[in-house]
Amino acid sequence: MPSLASAKPKESFTPETRSALLSRLLAVRAHSLALAREWSAEDQALQSMPDASPTKWHLAHTSWFFEAVVLQPHQAGFSWFDARWAHLFNSYYEALGPRHPRPARGVLSRPTLAQVHAYRAHVDAQLQALAQDASADVWAAVAPLLELGLHHEQQHQELMLTDLLHAFSCNPLLPACISAPTTRMPTPALRAVPHSTHPTAARWVPLPGGVHTVGHAGNSFAFDNEQPQHQVLLQPYQLADRLVTCGEFAQFVADGGYQRPQLWLSDGWATVQAQGWQAPAYWLAPGDARAPSDGWQVFGLHGVQALQADEPVTQLSFYEACAYAEWAATQAESAGARLPTEFEWEAAFATHSLTQMTGHAWQWTRSSYAPYPGFQPFAGAVGEYNGKFMSGQQVLRGSSLATPAGHTRPTYRNFFPPAARWQFSGLRLAKDATC
Amino acid sequence: MPSLASAKPKESFTPETRSALLSRLLAVRAHSLALAREWSAEDQALQSMPDASPTKWHLAHTSWFFEAVVLQPHQAGFSWFDARWAHLFNSYYEALGPRHPRPARGVLSRPTLAQVHAYRAHVDAQLQALAQDASADVWAAVAPLLELGLHHEQQHQELMLTDLLHAFSCNPLLPACISAPTTRMPTPALRAVPHSTHPTAARWVPLPGGVHTVGHAGNSFAFDNEQPQHQVLLQPYQLADRLVTCGEFAQFVADGGYQRPQLWLSDGWATVQAQGWQAPAYWLAPGDARAPSDGWQVFGLHGVQALQADEPVTQLSFYEACAYAEWAATQAESAGARLPTEFEWEAAFATHSLTQMTGHAWQWTRSSYAPYPGFQPFAGAVGEYNGKFMSGQQVLRGSSLATPAGHTRPTYRNFFPPAARWQFSGLRLAKDATC
Amino acid sequence: MPSLASAKPKESFTPETRSALLSRLLAVRAHSLALAREWSAEDQALQSMPDASPTKWHLAHTSWFFEAVVLQPHQAGFSWFDARWAHLFNSYYEALGPRHPRPARGVLSRPTLAQVHAYRAHVDAQLQALAQDASADVWAAVAPLLELGLHHEQQHQELMLTDLLHAFSCNPLLPACISAPTTRMPTPALRAVPHSTHPTAARWVPLPGGVHTVGHAGNSFAFDNEQPQHQVLLQPYQLADRLVTCGEFAQFVADGGYQRPQLWLSDGWATVQAQGWQAPAYWLAPGDARAPSDGWQVFGLHGVQALQADEPVTQLSFYEACAYAEWAATQAESAGARLPTEFEWEAAFATHSLTQMTGHAWQWTRSSYAPYPGFQPFAGAVGEYNGKFMSGQQVLRGSSLATPAGHTRPTYRNFFPPAARWQFSGLRLAKDATC
Amino acid sequence: MPSLASAKPKESFTPETRSALLSRLLAVRAHSLALAREWSAEDQALQSMPDASPTKWHLAHTSWFFEAVVLQPHQAGFSWFDARWAHLFNSYYEALGPRHPRPARGVLSRPTLAQVHAYRAHVDAQLQALAQDASADVWAAVAPLLELGLHHEQQHQELMLTDLLHAFSCNPLLPACISAPTTRMPTPALRAVPHSTHPTAARWVPLPGGVHTVGHAGNSFAFDNEQPQHQVLLQPYQLADRLVTCGEFAQFVADGGYQRPQLWLSDGWATVQAQGWQAPAYWLAPGDARAPSDGWQVFGLHGVQALQADEPVTQLSFYEACAYAEWAATQAESAGARLPTEFEWEAAFATHSLTQMTGHAWQWTRSSYAPYPGFQPFAGAVGEYNGKFMSGQQVLRGSSLATPAGHTRPTYRNFFPPAARWQFSGLRLAKDATC
Repeated sequence: MPSLASAKPKESFTPETRSALLSRLLAVRAHSLALAREWSAEDQALQSMPDASPTKWHLAHTSWFFEAVVLQPHQAGFSWFDARWAHLFNSYYEALGPRHPRPARGVLSRPTLAQVHAYRAHVDAQLQALAQDASADVWAAVAPLLELGLHHEQQHQELMLTDLLHAFSCNPLLPACISAPTTRMPTPALRAVPHSTHPTAARWVPLPGGVHTVGHAGNSFAFDNEQPQHQVLLQPYQLADRLVTCGEFAQFVADGGYQRPQLWLSDGWATVQAQGWQAPAYWLAPGDARAPSDGWQVFGLHGVQALQADEPVTQLSFYEACAYAEWAATQAESAGARLPTEFEWEAAFATHSLTQMTGHAWQWTRSSYAPYPGFQPFAGAVGEYNGKFMSGQQVLRGSSLATPAGHTRPTYRNFFPPAARWQFSGLRLAKDATC
Repeated sequence: MPSLASAKPKESFTPETRSALLSRLLAVRAHSLALAREWSAEDQALQSMPDASPTKWHLAHTSWFFEAVVLQPHQAGFSWFDARWAHLFNSYYEALGPRHPRPARGVLSRPTLAQVHAYRAHVDAQLQALAQDASADVWAAVAPLLELGLHHEQQHQELMLTDLLHAFSCNPLLPACISAPTTRMPTPALRAVPHSTHPTAARWVPLPGGVHTVGHAGNSFAFDNEQPQHQVLLQPYQLADRLVTCGEFAQFVADGGYQRPQLWLSDGWATVQAQGWQAPAYWLAPGDARAPSDGWQVFGLHGVQALQADEPVTQLSFYEACAYAEWAATQAESAGARLPTEFEWEAAFATHSLTQMTGHAWQWTRSSYAPYPGFQPFAGAVGEYNGKFMSGQQVLRGSSLATPAGHTRPTYRNFFPPAARWQFSGLRLAKDATC
Repeated sequence: MPSLASAKPKESFTPETRSALLSRLLAVRAHSLALAREWSAEDQALQSMPDASPTKWHLAHTSWFFEAVVLQPHQAGFSWFDARWAHLFNSYYEALGPRHPRPARGVLSRPTLAQVHAYRAHVDAQLQALAQDASADVWAAVAPLLELGLHHEQQHQELMLTDLLHAFSCNPLLPACISAPTTRMPTPALRAVPHSTHPTAARWVPLPGGVHTVGHAGNSFAFDNEQPQHQVLLQPYQLADRLVTCGEFAQFVADGGYQRPQLWLSDGWATVQAQGWQAPAYWLAPGDARAPSDGWQVFGLHGVQALQADEPVTQLSFYEACAYAEWAATQAESAGARLPTEFEWEAAFATHSLTQMTGHAWQWTRSSYAPYPGFQPFAGAVGEYNGKFMSGQQVLRGSSLATPAGHTRPTYRNFFPPAARWQFSGLRLAKDATC
Repeated sequence: MPSLASAKPKESFTPETRSALLSRLLAVRAHSLALAREWSAEDQALQSMPDASPTKWHLAHTSWFFEAVVLQPHQAGFSWFDARWAHLFNSYYEALGPRHPRPARGVLSRPTLAQVHAYRAHVDAQLQALAQDASADVWAAVAPLLELGLHHEQQHQELMLTDLLHAFSCNPLLPACISAPTTRMPTPALRAVPHSTHPTAARWVPLPGGVHTVGHAGNSFAFDNEQPQHQVLLQPYQLADRLVTCGEFAQFVADGGYQRPQLWLSDGWATVQAQGWQAPAYWLAPGDARAPSDGWQVFGLHGVQALQADEPVTQLSFYEACAYAEWAATQAESAGARLPTEFEWEAAFATHSLTQMTGHAWQWTRSSYAPYPGFQPFAGAVGEYNGKFMSGQQVLRGSSLATPAGHTRPTYRNFFPPAARWQFSGLRLAKDATC
């Protein structure tokens, strides 16, 4: 990794007019508020675990990001909305000063939600003013940071949903994050996915080996971790044409999947035992006191619903995905199954031969999150955005039903620790061509 | 301890008319809401540590107590306001079913504060109806439980203040629990305490040894842990006529009190090191980034204020109280100082020769919390009220500025673990007559 | 507690000739080695939990105690056997410098056992030389410290047994600490206790209330925590004439004692759940894989043996003792049962009306470990011996089968935290006279 | 990963006579004892952390491996040396039954070291008998397992050294594992490495990109994780011709390397703060109380010695290696520095253009430990040998001064978690060809 000081600013975005960029930005900003509209101030203050943050914190942090990264260095006569808030809403940028402890974000009843809303309006107004007033030089520096902030905010939009869903999963009343699934869905990405009632078996799609080009190039936006574009060598392989379903995963559960150590990675089995895992995170076993029923149920954005056999299974950890694949390898119809690598996934995407690649569930891959050859972090403080997390995590590809519209790319690399199971994360099976 | 099954119901309350008891009860219930009036729904949902609970939880739990202990067994045609809430708002009564985990009370954004207010109104209405309609037999069973519930709610009123104060102490903005100290104080107990600017030295008041009667007797209400009345033998002793002040404690701090293991109990010193204690819990050292100042400041119900040298020191743990006493014993004016026992305190109370016995700060004693000779817990589920906590805790006597009016008794035994320091807990020095 | 600086040296020992004291001392020292004779160097290096220490460490620490407390201040031309060892073998004396971390005592393969034996011989020789050469003034200072060191070493002799027993209990092979129960018992206190095969019911012995004198006075040795002698007021009471037996405790287990929260102190029940307790520490349930059997077995100093119904139950925590008493209170023959206070025990001792008061099992009392009125710690560094542990612990009275001969006193106050269950600790029931 | 049941036995070993294999095997077995010869039974029982095991346990476990994997399934009339020991000395093979908890291996004073020696002799004799008596079919199954067990034992030989070194590092006396560096070194790999006193700057060796073949093929032994051989695509790169030295790492330390979060991976910085890291694991800062000196010293197999500026730095975690590389990237002579991937290392090995590739220190790579394309675990219980650890770990390449002779391969993949720092693990810098 080169010296941060010597890294060049990235200019990987489509040239467009100031007003076009600003318009896109403000639409994203508005969507954050729209997502949270249904939730009370009490809901928006919840933090149910150190890895998850309150909605209000997300709303403030994404505003702080613009204030600290765009306005502070580039706005003439800049002053903080409230100088103390930088301490509260900095997430992990060591270069931008000390921070309120992450596990204690839930204790911040102040600033109030109303104050955070005012903060957002203030930041939006300052960004608009900056876009109008900036010299060409300033704009050249500012525009890529606005673009970055826009995508940053979209990432937090997905977390707003998954973090609140986790918080609600800890409440025995199991409230719904989104009250009416069909009519009030605030984002196209949260569309209802139609399912046949009798899922057909997954089909294995053969895919060629050889040298493939992966990673992002060109002027459109991408994160530093998707770059540079480079070549990789693959062996011939096959991918399932769709994601693993709840019905299939229920067979794994019924077959003792959570009781058989031989199916699990060592760390995974230790986690199963330490955490008492028996099924995916939000599955309710028959008879669960919180919502008694004769069958399995699944808690999701719309509350508790009967398990839908043909829906993709989600809220899986990497460990569970691996164990499932190991088990599937012992089944006749999926002999030799394994997880794909991130490059197998990316190369397959280009073929348009598979379904459910995006918009349903992030797909765990067998690739650990590591720098691409020639990787250079973004210049400046935002150099901490991605690079420093490149250990101990696995790459997920695709996007989920909670990913905002416009935040999906074939080169996109999502990443989470292997035990994380509060995301809309599932899996697609792969196998060697020769299996 | 006798079998719970064989314990007799206590009838330790003053006979009064149904309407008189009901009137007292509803006044206490109304006071809970009055205390919280200033706080937003976000504030009232905060839980900053496992030992502290959200305001909203206190408001609901004190209502559940009446519903579960009074209405459920004694109201004809009883039905739960919401049967699922018993699980949420049971604190620690094993006999009354399983409970939501204590450390996770802060995740309960639902029921909302508005729903909890409705719950309170519902319970109040049911209690009123029961008081009107109950037969004499039922009333005889109900009245002591109402009296108990009333005092139970008063205990939680003090916790509402100390728990929120703790939560606010974790917010770097250090908000005030009570905005205007002189005019909006919702309870007489929260009165401003006038102080001279030049505190005089504490005076040692000699007190006689011999056999003293301690504990509660008679028809007025007392908790089971204050009973039965019995005799104890004391040696002649002396008590300071007032509490230890912030100014005095600041001398202990300045004299390296928190750096000298010889002054501390072994467990106390381990806690000092593990927690990094340097001063009482809510003291801000000169220059503290949250509210920079040249001198020590203290965070309290009204926010941050300069340390008042003649105010009683509060928010002390038992360990700190002991270490202070050990240090004071090395000072000429307090040679031989130690903590009093709870019976020394109670016997001295009767002499009316001391100040600040109640209404300022709970006073740690050298007495561990143990059953009195002949102790019998309340009958039934409320037998879990006090007795099962009789290990690992120390007795505090008196009452604090946060104790509700009418909740003070000379025989009252408050108790907390030795490391607890989020209460209005301070100390009064004692010494042997011969020192 | 008075200032350590102002505390007077205690002179609470019987005048005797230098050679008599030295002779007693060397006999105790020799007994430590005799106790360990059967154990390999590997055995003697074991540490199975932070609260327990390796035999070798005990052997070295008790020698360091003499070196640091007696020789260093009082021997002309003193030099350390190895100056680095003071760091290794200081237990908890803050005044005597920093220490090797307690939980890491098991990592000290060096110094070797042979070196520790040499250390013991060296210290013994130095003590002998000091006894011969000391002036009268020096001897006056040294003699009480030798006496203290002698009793200190006896305390560690009991710990050598209980700590190794704990270590062996963690080895699935469950080795025996003492190979042949009848012939090789190294100390009279470890005698075989004859039992009838059909235990008779315990008999309740009535004992008078009133003012009783407790605590130690006179010239014979006692620890500071047994002093000063003082008077206490008791109410008439009854004590069981013998200890609770394994057979009785097995009934508690069979009656669901470990599954019924109502029987337990709150902290006790939390411990039961967190630790998965199902029976006393060293009981093996029928079918246990380590030593399969149809009935309950008990692991003890001689290895695994079938549960002896009429032997006193040992290796109990205070929590288990309390829960048993609570359960016993519900049984016809022991209605009203509770634990005695330490003063009830001490007053009863004087009546010679009870059996198994000493030599079988330490007896948990309902008294927390607190300073007596007028308590003064030993002067100097040994002031840390007892006083600083006076919080969070319960007093046990009597002595056990592992207590060395000559280390038993009616005023003796043993103390352990309420969850400790690796000692030979049991219980005797008490009840009020009126029950 | 394919079904374990369907995996084929590997036959990746050189055909040789029975006696040749047996002879190699017994030589390795004997070397284990030779390594430990200097250490007392007390030393050999030490366990200083859950990740490290006692020498005695290694000696027994490597014997159990042969007993459980070779003798049990393949020896006619097999019986266990002691059936209870399988529980004690199984490391992590779920298929082979439950195990004694890993963190509690240090509590096993029994079986004694002498008994473990007898166990080893017994197993050796049984293996000899089996080699003589086995039919051709049995031998065909047994030989690969003997080969595997031989290499398994060599792995434990290195751990015997690093685990004891860790244990000794926890002893303030800092004993030497190996008393006389030049004459008693039991293995050629532990040779003294000659150093110039003035290290020259590392030289960057340019290496070609393109398709490279990596991984093991052919009849000689390799672990399953080195297979199958396959092709990878590299970009042109450069590697330093030697390892990073202690002198270079000391500059990183002196330049505030351990105080600058920007140099660290996020998890690494969290570890630095949680563990209080200030320098490599076994470095003693000037003035350290355990061996006071004016300069830095390093604790190693021969005890404490002054830091040798031109020796490779070892006992580094992956986090420290990454932070060092990040810092080196900011230095003129190493601009653009980063860690190599495991395939860059392997491709470079074939060029013979670099020094210190093996025999000095394992070299952290930027590659996480993952299965090769087409990876198949060994068949049977030994399928758990490698595959289940393929998450959360990084690959190290090369070998160290503690690696036994004959245990080095260019395709060898060692792996440890990123925070592990008790191995002889260091680093070699890489950079892109274009830097």
